[in-house]
Formats: sequence, structure tokens, C-alpha cells
Amino acid sequence: MAQTSWKNFFLSVFDYKTEKYVIAKNKKVGVLFRVFQLAVLLYIIGWVFLKKKGYQERDDSIQSAVITKLKGVALTNTTDSGLHLWGAEDYVIPPQGERIFFIITNFIETPNQRLGHCAESIKVPDGHCRENDDCTEGEAVISGNGIKSGRCLNSTGTCEIYGWCPIEKQHKPQEAILRKAENFTVYIKNFMRFPKFQFSKSNVLETNNDMYLKKCLYNETHHPYCPIFRLGDLTSWAGHSFQDMALMGGSIGVLIQWNCDLDKDYSKCNPRYSFTRLDVKSDNSVASGYNFRYARYYKDATGQTYRTLFKVYGIRIDIMVTGEAGKFNIIPTIVNIGSGLALMGAGVFLCDMVLLYMMKKSTFYRESKFESAKYESIRWKGKRRELKAVSEDGTPRRQDTWQGKFIELAPTKSEVNS
Amino acid sequence: MAQTSWKNFFLSVFDYKTEKYVIAKNKKVGVLFRVFQLAVLLYIIGWVFLKKKGYQERDDSIQSAVITKLKGVALTNTTDSGLHLWGAEDYVIPPQGERIFFIITNFIETPNQRLGHCAESIKVPDGHCRENDDCTEGEAVISGNGIKSGRCLNSTGTCEIYGWCPIEKQHKPQEAILRKAENFTVYIKNFMRFPKFQFSKSNVLETNNDMYLKKCLYNETHHPYCPIFRLGDLTSWAGHSFQDMALMGGSIGVLIQWNCDLDKDYSKCNPRYSFTRLDVKSDNSVASGYNFRYARYYKDATGQTYRTLFKVYGIRIDIMVTGEAGKFNIIPTIVNIGSGLALMGAGVFLCDMVLLYMMKKSTFYRESKFESAKYESIRWKGKRRELKAVSEDGTPRRQDTWQGKFIELAPTKSEVNS
Amino acid sequence: MAQTSWKNFFLSVFDYKTEKYVIAKNKKVGVLFRVFQLAVLLYIIGWVFLKKKGYQERDDSIQSAVITKLKGVALTNTTDSGLHLWGAEDYVIPPQGERIFFIITNFIETPNQRLGHCAESIKVPDGHCRENDDCTEGEAVISGNGIKSGRCLNSTGTCEIYGWCPIEKQHKPQEAILRKAENFTVYIKNFMRFPKFQFSKSNVLETNNDMYLKKCLYNETHHPYCPIFRLGDLTSWAGHSFQDMALMGGSIGVLIQWNCDLDKDYSKCNPRYSFTRLDVKSDNSVASGYNFRYARYYKDATGQTYRTLFKVYGIRIDIMVTGEAGKFNIIPTIVNIGSGLALMGAGVFLCDMVLLYMMKKSTFYRESKFESAKYESIRWKGKRRELKAVSEDGTPRRQDTWQGKFIELAPTKSEVNS
Repeated sequence: MAQTSWKNFFLSVFDYKTEKYVIAKNKKVGVLFRVFQLAVLLYIIGWVFLKKKGYQERDDSIQSAVITKLKGVALTNTTDSGLHLWGAEDYVIPPQGERIFFIITNFIETPNQRLGHCAESIKVPDGHCRENDDCTEGEAVISGNGIKSGRCLNSTGTCEIYGWCPIEKQHKPQEAILRKAENFTVYIKNFMRFPKFQFSKSNVLETNNDMYLKKCLYNETHHPYCPIFRLGDLTSWAGHSFQDMALMGGSIGVLIQWNCDLDKDYSKCNPRYSFTRLDVKSDNSVASGYNFRYARYYKDATGQTYRTLFKVYGIRIDIMVTGEAGKFNIIPTIVNIGSGLALMGAGVFLCDMVLLYMMKKSTFYRESKFESAKYESIRWKGKRRELKAVSEDGTPRRQDTWQGKFIELAPTKSEVNS
Repeated sequence: MAQTSWKNFFLSVFDYKTEKYVIAKNKKVGVLFRVFQLAVLLYIIGWVFLKKKGYQERDDSIQSAVITKLKGVALTNTTDSGLHLWGAEDYVIPPQGERIFFIITNFIETPNQRLGHCAESIKVPDGHCRENDDCTEGEAVISGNGIKSGRCLNSTGTCEIYGWCPIEKQHKPQEAILRKAENFTVYIKNFMRFPKFQFSKSNVLETNNDMYLKKCLYNETHHPYCPIFRLGDLTSWAGHSFQDMALMGGSIGVLIQWNCDLDKDYSKCNPRYSFTRLDVKSDNSVASGYNFRYARYYKDATGQTYRTLFKVYGIRIDIMVTGEAGKFNIIPTIVNIGSGLALMGAGVFLCDMVLLYMMKKSTFYRESKFESAKYESIRWKGKRRELKAVSEDGTPRRQDTWQGKFIELAPTKSEVNS
Repeated sequence: MAQTSWKNFFLSVFDYKTEKYVIAKNKKVGVLFRVFQLAVLLYIIGWVFLKKKGYQERDDSIQSAVITKLKGVALTNTTDSGLHLWGAEDYVIPPQGERIFFIITNFIETPNQRLGHCAESIKVPDGHCRENDDCTEGEAVISGNGIKSGRCLNSTGTCEIYGWCPIEKQHKPQEAILRKAENFTVYIKNFMRFPKFQFSKSNVLETNNDMYLKKCLYNETHHPYCPIFRLGDLTSWAGHSFQDMALMGGSIGVLIQWNCDLDKDYSKCNPRYSFTRLDVKSDNSVASGYNFRYARYYKDATGQTYRTLFKVYGIRIDIMVTGEAGKFNIIPTIVNIGSGLALMGAGVFLCDMVLLYMMKKSTFYRESKFESAKYESIRWKGKRRELKAVSEDGTPRRQDTWQGKFIELAPTKSEVNS
């Protein structure tokens, strides 16, 4: 016996239980629901699958290495240092080909500075003085060039300082000395890797023609895979004039985007370049430029140190690499379909609300949808087959609804089962 | 005819089919389910929408450029190099205003080193020797300063080496020479951009008052939008004393967080700064500090190279920018509501389990919920209307349940349809 | 009265409404559904919970700081500069212990360059000339070393240029001069932090034995927590020979991965290192190497500037830190269970389709599942109890299905309620 019941139980486990539906012959709600279904379907197919490629596993933790190299020489002629030839080893800082680098386009040179006493610049407010008491000895001049010695110099009206003398000439540059930097070229090598898919690629065109990379110049339409950029082009693509930027300096962002669909061919995975100026304010006015100082130190025959100070203005290039790769995978496909279908639940909820509470015949639909299963002893009166079903609020329902007449009604299953 | 049936089919497509529910008049499970619904609702509204802003599309791939500039001078007086004035061009490495930079706070200078032979330091274990055989010629001293020449020097008990002589004095610094660096200021310019929303902003207060940026100093309460930081403040906000760090060096992380709700006004999107010391161990003890060496090369009148070696200790500042922006979008709103509703499914499952298997009257509820639809020929005996429905386990059900009496039962739909 | 009805309404709110199911005694679909349920269950438990740890809140915005330090000296002997000792202050660029650094393994030195006129290299195509007209005065030589002076030199067949003379010898190096760099060691300090969990750790083994870090060398099996790496090992783990890379230079990526399960012990959160060569093309052929130039400037007794130009080849090390931490949290646990269950919906949909449209008895199942609730006046003919129910297509249903005989049928609820 136990065996039989176990067998029955086992068999019943493999009965398929499906939800019972009530067909509400209400076209309004029906159309509403179909429209909702269609919207969900369109959303799943159009947005999730076609646009967002929801059938793909994604990897956005791109690993990337950038190496840069600049080419070009320029001759400058200044009163301080005469004719001078600038090569990449001079105008690129740092020289080792970093992802972020700075190209000198303008400079103020202050040669042969030695430690000693001299007058603070008239342009430094904190250095102004009338008498010696204004120049407390040993105090640093705020935003100045040295330490006050305690003396006020009448000739300039500023404190005497101990520092590197002569001090830098404080004037705004009127013209970019290295304006020919416009024609320098940057060679950007970018190796990237998507670790999840073991996929790696470089932005350098794979060609057998070695000369191509020596001569080509990036151009979005004609040479999209040539990673050599003219400086003047970089700035103009970012929407600014090179000569304007060269004067006071600025910052250009070069964004390399790798958006790769690895279900497609290897050759379809290519970088896209975009260029923005980074040091602009929201109102598109340009911030005050980009400059810094560095010094070259020398020793004379007696071992005394002297130096040449450079205040350099220039263009800082910041190469940013982002990317995302996708490849077909069954798990996200299932998950996306599943959660899309889950959205239908919202539609069912909505349509049910409309049907059950906002239609004229809502009461009828409510009673069709909801079947009472209150466990109660049934009042069945012998052979006369007088039956009083009990409505949800406890009053005899069928009699009530059937206009006061007694009619023969079959007991509902719940009544029979009681 | 075919037209009619197609029309019927077409019309039936727009019938709304809604699930039939059985009302189980069981207050325990009912309350349980309402509590669950309430929890899900609170979760969706409170957590997903209010806290996580689930109605927004998010962009966390912030693009950022950081430019830094230090200001301040300090005078040092050492026996090796006498009075020396340090400006930003000297104490910031690298000088070009990078995101990660190092400020010299202490140093050991070894001037006038020339290539030649001298004794290895007594502090290098591998340099110790008793006789010449201990100093294999041409072998590098491990963690030492040069290449063994093959001779053991009795005066020091160490090998003679070929290297830059005199070798650096190996002593731990007792005092930070550039301790006045505490008052240096860092100006941090941070331009950031959320590419998805085409939104960009800078951390520099947009003000018409040019003098503000020349005088202000960051202070969380009084000047939260002034991007100029005193070095001493940076370390104290990170929980450490500047003078302690200055001695042996250390590393400070400055985290700039942009958490922007782009549904709000442009002016509400502001950075938040936080400061941590990066080189601390888990038990909050400090790692051994931060130092490195660099050399300045000179040539004398005869063309011989000599150099000054600096071992510098200092504070490394690492500026990290993170951020996330959100903006209202219908897609994530729908998805979040949908997946919140999907959670209700879990509640239905749970409550059904309780109702169908853990209540006293579970058998009754099970029979109410599940309606058999076994396809079987109906045993209907002509006019006498003797009907035997078949229960789930194959025995005549209605007769069985109805206490042995034959009663008139309407055939159920499944019987009728057979 | 109103009070009573409100009370009734209030009580009915806490009635539990459960979906009515039809048991389709169809083993095929039943087994299909159970298999689907099992698959979803396995997916939730196996993939979501065990493999992806779906019960954890995740933080992948790791904050990290890397400090590096190189050790080792090497002696070189070249015709240009004689015996020279290289220490870390010379061969590491930049010297301050950055995340990305370059180690010189080979170099071409051009000492004592002065600004002046000399012949362009024969290797620069743009410098070739036959007569003076080929050398336009003031024009830069493309990829050359200076500015054309306007004269064509017959001795070399190239233009005379103004630049740093003598120009660099243009030859490919045959042997790595600093080949002993193979034994240099890199000490990588990596401090990381998971901001969401306030968890921070360093890759340096926390040990009381100070000597351990002075002597150990990283080895995946024997010393996995020693952060000191031999350069030769780095390249060989990346699959390349150090001596090959040393000649022309190259780029090595060191990936530090922190995948931490913070539900486990602190000591279980450890970095994993991996090594790849970054400058290889897809066909595994190596790109042309890695080199750059820098110059050291000197002044002679008369104040004239001269310089030593170095073209350095070497290995660029790029240390990348990634990581993800997870910690138990109730929210993602619920969300993952919920969306897993939502997947069941897809199974229900699939099985319903099979049952209702692909089985032999689909019509029967369809009628069992769907109950009509068309609101229509019932044609009940007085006491004679002649009842015609209306089937879905509007024809009298019961009579129709019941083989033409009139039988007494109890009105269905929908008929009664009308």
C-alpha cells in the first residue's frame, strides 16, 4: 500500500500544473495588455538585444599600455640664449614616452641664476615695502622668490630677498616662441587587452609596408588606422587653435575607445579617437593656461652652483583609453530574457487593476477571477436539494443573486468536498 | 466561413486572459503575504528608488584630468651645501604638475662624487671582508654601492669597490631639513567629464573674483570650493603629523569624489575631498617611509664627470578622482520596478508553501487550488444521469466524497467536453 | 452598517488570494517543467551563488597606490665614456618610484654635442641632396637632426644642418650594454583599499622578521608573498628572454589582482601576480622595441652650453592593480534569488506553449485552462430550466458539445451571477 501511494506521489510530481485563466471578454483591457506585451517584446528585442547586445558577456576592465613618441625639431632665437635647436629630448617632458606628457611651446628663460641677495619683483604684492620693518628677516615672501633679508630697497620699493638672483622676469608672453611645434607629430602606440576574453590588440595597423608608418598621418576618413597625429590637428579637432594654446598653454585629452564585438572578426575591433580640450570652464572660457618651472643646474670652475631657470608654457596631452568588449554567452542571454519577461508581470498587474476596479462590470470580473474557498460546513437540506452556498460575506449567495427564486444548483466542488 | 473563424480568432486574441484566483480565507497566510508585499514595496521605494536612485541611468566612467601646482619657498642650511633656497622647481618631482607628485621634505646630499675606488660602507653586510678572497673582483656588492675590486681594506674591514666615491653617508636622518614645507600649498585643478551625459565641470570655483583663488585655502566648512590645500593640513586630515612624515617620508592619498545627481542643478554637482595615508599597515603602524635617490651630473674643466647625489625623503601625494553621475531615464526605472515586482514571486511561493503544506486544512486548500484536468472518457449512463466523476487517484470521486448517496451532479466542463 | 462593511473590507484584505491551478495529467510536459525547474535551481545555486557569489555585495572600485624601488649596480665599459657604474639613480627613469618606470638596458651615448653646423646623417632620406637647392635654408629635415642651412655637402651627399653636432651615430645596437640588469631587483609596494568595506591591505608580508624582505625573492610556489622580483624572472614569466628584450627594449605588464572574499579571514585576501609582454602584435611578433632620448646639459668655463645625448633602450614596467571584494549582504541575496525565480516564468511560458498548442489533446487543455467569463444575459427559460450556455464563439456551448441532447445543467457561476 505504501508503495502504491509513493508511486502515486511520484507520478503526481510529474503532473504539469498550469495556472487557470479566466477569459475576460473585454476588448479594452485585452488590447491594453497586447500593447503592453508588444512594448515589452520590442524593448527586449530592440533595446536589450540589438542596442545593448544583451546576449553578450561583457568585459569593461580593459588593460592598456600607452607609449608615445614625438618627432620634429624647431629653431628658436631669443635674446637670452641666442639660436637654439629644440629636439624631442628637450621639448617633451617627461622624455620617456608616457601616457601623459607635456610639449613646450613657449618659455621664459632666466640664465645664470646664483644664490644671493637681490630685490623682490615689483609684481609680488607681499614684497612691497616702505621701510626695513616691512621686511621681517627670515620670512618667506608669499608667492615670491625668496626669503626676506630685512632690508627695504628704495630703488624698487620692494624688500631685498635671499634667493636665486637675478629673479625671473615677470611678464606675460606675447608670442609663442616654439610656434612651429604645430607641425610636430605624436606617434601613439596603444596595446590593449581584454583579460576575460584573452583578446589583445594594438592600434598600430598591421601592415607589411614598413614605410607606411613613417609617412602616414592620422585622418579620420583617409587614414583611420595610422596612429600618428600632427599637434596642430589635435588642437583643431579639439576645437581650439594651436597658436592660441601655444601662447599660454593648455591641456588636450585624447580619448581612445575600443568598443569591440568579439563575435565579429578580429579586424572589426578598432579604436576610435576623440579629442577634447580639458582645461575649459563650463562657459567655454579657457582657464589661465598651463605652465611650470624647471631648472638646469651647473657648477662653475670654483664649484659654485648656478642654474638656468625655465618657465615653460605648453600643451599637455593626456591619452585616455577606455573600452568594452562583448562576446556571446548563454548566461546573460537567459538572464536578460528572464528579466524582460518579468516586466510582463507589471503589465498583468496594471491590466488586472483596470479590469477589476475601473471597468463598469468590475464586480462581475472580480467574482469570476476570485473563487472563494472558505472552509465551511455546507447547509444541504436532505433530498429536497435546497442548497445555500455562502457568498464571500457570509450571506447565502446563489439565492441572493438569483432574484429570490430557489433553483437547483449543483454543489460546487468546495461544497461537495466539505 | 474561413473568414468568420479568422475574425473570431482575431477577436479572441484581444480577449484579456487573467489568472483565476482562489480566495483562501486564511488570515495567517493573508497577513504574512501582506507583510511580504509591504516589505517589497518598502524595498523598492526606500532602497531602490530613494537610496540607490534606481530611476536614473548611471555613468561611472568619469574622465578626469588633474593638474597640480605647488607654491612656497624654504631656506635650508646644511654643512654640505650651506644656505640653499628651495623653490617648487626643486622640491617637486616631477616638476610638470602631475596627478602623482613628490615633495622633498628631507634629504641627504653627497656632493662631488667621482668614479673611482673607495671602501664599501660598513653598513652593507655583503661588503664585509677579512681578506682579499672575500672580495671577488668584478662582483657587485649586494645592496651596495659598487663593484668589488678584489682588495679587502683593513682600515674599514670592507671590500674596496669601484663606484661613485665618496659613498653616501648611511645614517638615518634625525630631523627634517625642509620642515617648513608644512606651509607650502598645493593647487589642485581637476577637470572632469561624464561622457554619457556630456557633462563636464571643474573643481575650481567659478567666480569673477580673481583674487579669491590667490588667497583662499581649502577648509571643509568655510571654503569647500577652494582647491588650494596647505601641506600640513593634508597630513593632519589624513590623521598624521606633518613633522613625523617629513622625517622619513610617506604617502598621502587625496580622493576627489564627484557624486552628481544631474537631475538637480549644475551648481549642486560638487567634489568631495577625502584624505588618507596610503603607506600604513593594517595594524596602523607606519611602513618604513618613502625615499629615493637622484643625481645631478656636472663636468669639470677637463671634461671629467662628477655628480651630486641626493637621497630624498618626502611626501608623495596621489590624487585619485572617482565619480558617478545619474540622470532620470525611463529604461532603468522600468527595469527596477519590474525586477522589484519579480521579487513578489518569491513571496507568493513562500505563502503558497505555508498554505498548502503547513496549515491544518492544507488538504482542502490544495484541492481548491488545483483542479484536475485528466482527460478520460466519462462514464455517463444514459438518461439515468448516473455520473461518476473520477477523482485524481482514479476512484469515482463525487460519489465517494458525497457520503455514498447518488446525487444529481452537473457534469464538469471536462466531462462535458469529452 | 458602513462600519460593518468597512470591517468586512478590512478583513477581506487579509484573505490570501492564491492562483488556481489546473493539473494537466500530462507526464511529458510535467517532466519538461521539472527539468526546467531543476536547471534554474542548479543555475541559481551553482552559478549565481557558488561561482559568482551572488549573496555578496561587491566593490570593484579598488583604490591603490604603488611604490617601486630598484636595487642593483652594473659596470659598463664603452669606448665613448669608459668605465661607468650604473646605480638605480641612473638607470631608472623616472627615479621617484612610480607605478610605470623604465629601466635602461642599452644605450647610445653622444657626448659633447654643441650647437653648430654639420652634415645630416646619411640615414635620413630627407637630408640627401645633390646641390644647394635641395637644401632650402631654414627648413627642418623631416625625421632629422636639425635645420637645413642651405648648403649641400659633397663629402657626405647630405645637406648641412644647424643642430647639435656631432650628430648621433645611427646604428642598431648589436649587444645590450647593461645586460647585467637581468639580476636587478624590483621591490613593489602596493597599498590597496576597498572604500565600500573600509578594508585596506598591503602586498608586503606582515612579518616580524625584518630580514625576510631584505633577502627574499618572489616565487609563485615558495615565496608568494615576497614582493621583490628579479628583472630576468619578470621577463621569463612573461614568456620572453631578458637578453632579447634588453637589446632593443620592450614593455612588461605586471598585473596585481586582489580578489578578496571578505567573509573569510583577513589573511585570505592576497594578491595574485601575472606577467605579460605588452608590446607584442597579434601574431606574437614583437614590435620594434622601446627607446627614447634624453640629454644632460653642461656649461663650459666660457658659459657655452654643451650636452651629452643618450638614446636609451630598455624595459618599461607597467604595474596594473585590479581587484574586487565581496561581502555578504542581504539585498543582493534577495535580488539574485528573486531574479532567478523570475527565470521560472520563462519555463512556465514554454511549457504552457507546448501543452496548449503542441500536444494531441491541446484543445482539451486549452479549455481546461481558460474559463470564459463573457458577460451576457443568460437565456434561462423559466421553470423548465432549459439553459443554453454560450460558448466562446457565441453558439450555445453545452448543447453543442453534449451530442445534441438537452440535459439539465446547473448554471455556471457566471450565468447565475448575471
